Amino acid sequence: MSTTFAVLAMDPLTGARRGRLRTPHGEVDTPAFMPVGTQGTVKAMTPEELRELGTQILLGNTYHLYLRPGVEIIHRAGGLHQFMHWEGPILTDSGGFQVYSLQALRQVTEEGVTFQSHLDGSTHLFTPESVIAAQELLGADLIMCLDDVPGYPCSPKRAKEAMWRSLAWAERCRAAHRREDQALFGIVQGAFDRDLRLTSVARLVELDFPGYAIGGLSVGEPKAITWEVLAYTASALPADRPRYLMGVGWPEDIVHAVRLGVDLFDCVLPTRLGRTGTALTSQGRLNLRQAQYAEDLTPLDPACDCYTCRYYTRAYVRHLVKANEILGVRLLTYHNLAFYQRLMHRLQQHLEAGTFAEFAAQFPVPE
Amino acid sequence: MSTTFAVLAMDPLTGARRGRLRTPHGEVDTPAFMPVGTQGTVKAMTPEELRELGTQILLGNTYHLYLRPGVEIIHRAGGLHQFMHWEGPILTDSGGFQVYSLQALRQVTEEGVTFQSHLDGSTHLFTPESVIAAQELLGADLIMCLDDVPGYPCSPKRAKEAMWRSLAWAERCRAAHRREDQALFGIVQGAFDRDLRLTSVARLVELDFPGYAIGGLSVGEPKAITWEVLAYTASALPADRPRYLMGVGWPEDIVHAVRLGVDLFDCVLPTRLGRTGTALTSQGRLNLRQAQYAEDLTPLDPACDCYTCRYYTRAYVRHLVKANEILGVRLLTYHNLAFYQRLMHRLQQHLEAGTFAEFAAQFPVPE
Repeated sequence: MSTTFAVLAMDPLTGARRGRLRTPHGEVDTPAFMPVGTQGTVKAMTPEELRELGTQILLGNTYHLYLRPGVEIIHRAGGLHQFMHWEGPILTDSGGFQVYSLQALRQVTEEGVTFQSHLDGSTHLFTPESVIAAQELLGADLIMCLDDVPGYPCSPKRAKEAMWRSLAWAERCRAAHRREDQALFGIVQGAFDRDLRLTSVARLVELDFPGYAIGGLSVGEPKAITWEVLAYTASALPADRPRYLMGVGWPEDIVHAVRLGVDLFDCVLPTRLGRTGTALTSQGRLNLRQAQYAEDLTPLDPACDCYTCRYYTRAYVRHLVKANEILGVRLLTYHNLAFYQRLMHRLQQHLEAGTFAEFAAQFPVPE
Repeated sequence: MSTTFAVLAMDPLTGARRGRLRTPHGEVDTPAFMPVGTQGTVKAMTPEELRELGTQILLGNTYHLYLRPGVEIIHRAGGLHQFMHWEGPILTDSGGFQVYSLQALRQVTEEGVTFQSHLDGSTHLFTPESVIAAQELLGADLIMCLDDVPGYPCSPKRAKEAMWRSLAWAERCRAAHRREDQALFGIVQGAFDRDLRLTSVARLVELDFPGYAIGGLSVGEPKAITWEVLAYTASALPADRPRYLMGVGWPEDIVHAVRLGVDLFDCVLPTRLGRTGTALTSQGRLNLRQAQYAEDLTPLDPACDCYTCRYYTRAYVRHLVKANEILGVRLLTYHNLAFYQRLMHRLQQHLEAGTFAEFAAQFPVPE
């Protein structure tokens, strides 16, 4: 059984859509946010807690799992779902972006990308074929092609090279892809060049992927450029396939990207902010390390009904943060993920009710 | 409403008892193990998880809470129960042992003990009156007298001084104690001297405390001495009052102390071992950092039915430990606390069934 996607409702005023993915491990209502489970765990959370928060799909990082504990042992454990005790859908990236982030430690050729492990400095080669093989062993429902990420700023030469290389790799990934229970997504590249992006879309669409990721954005460029590129890229993609904007973003980024027609998101922000003592609230961000919260006996967010906000005060969470207590990270991570999942649920509801544009107008376009 | 204690069953062959404490925040079946919530949280656990594990009572440390976040803010939050969202019974220590552990940073006089904060080096004075006041603001169900802990080895002069000073402080604590919903326990001192210990017991019993703690043990002395002192001290205490052996210990220590008539225990071991990658199991201790567990797809303890053992493998927990993932600490802490609480439950059941001595015989007396 493979993954299917249906658009359930379209917003009449924007490009936003309400959809549903059906995967071998269950359904995903879109627009959806995927918490990031880099090392086979969404940091500080159990799968039960993620489910309780309304999470329907997680992201796993092939690069990290390949290096530690290794994809073979995860395969022997029954795959990533069973290894980490998450029964719902999983998307794995290909490692392309993770390796791009290594900067000086990598070398890209037509064959693939050679890189040094951030853990022990050992040398490895990722090829389109090898990342498909690794993702087959992990067994996620949605898997990604290897791509060459050019970054920002980016010369026309490098932009062109990375786009065509990513396309060639996408063809090789498609040829290597075997497991019918895994849906392989193509990744649009083309840096910040309209022609390159549209060529990337057209050629990937010829390969007829069941879904498309938009890569190479949020790599340091001004937000105005992100939105410009996203607008013409997303609207060029086939309407009946899911669109995944990789690594984005803040809540207001997500709202705007939904407006432009994106269905799937992942970002480390809610979990990372939780570990650094920051709560996302309806009143803005709170840095719990600030002294002003030491005697504040109100919840993190009075408008939130999550476990953290029902039972704990800002003073208590601040105390835990100051004392480096794990429960502080847990309570903040849980709350921040609740904040994201509630946002996604509201976006879905407004798309169903035909009130999306009005709702989204509360969120200024991030600059 | 104050705390009452009833002995429900006595083992015919040993000093072991099955009892029940009734406190303003609920009942505690004894022998009971109290997980340690040093800084207003049992490290890495939520109150709901502790309850799920069968925990009926927690311990809080007055010294730590006094320094951070301060007892005043906890009082304004509604007391420690509400601050940390634990609705069950709590016992707070007096800070005597914590300050003793500071070693060079403290100075003991008849008035009290002056010490420097381990957090910022600031100077503080604990007196019998001030620790009662602090514990009244915290609002625990069971509270402790300030005591002078002599350590090991210990000269006859120091043993005598510490015992008589602890007695004088116990009288002052009793005089300062006001809240009827808090049961104040006396603490037996006397180092490793039978006469001093029995004098301490006799004088404390004259003060008629609703419960008695046995202090000054497990401070570095050989186990044979611990058991010798515990045997004559516990058996000298009134049979109708709960007996609390402070800071003990490993599972086999607890079994032997129950044999000698102890009802209440606290220890950081299950939580601390969880944070350092060690699991307590029916097959002994596992250090998950060892390479032999990298491909071990069995549960931590095949004889355990806790959440961790139901859903996760040794290979996964080891991966989390190696990757410094918080979930690794959570799963190990949860499992280790399950191990302790299951032991306490079995001790209670065997005491009820009259089969305690047989059950306890499986645990060799720790040397």
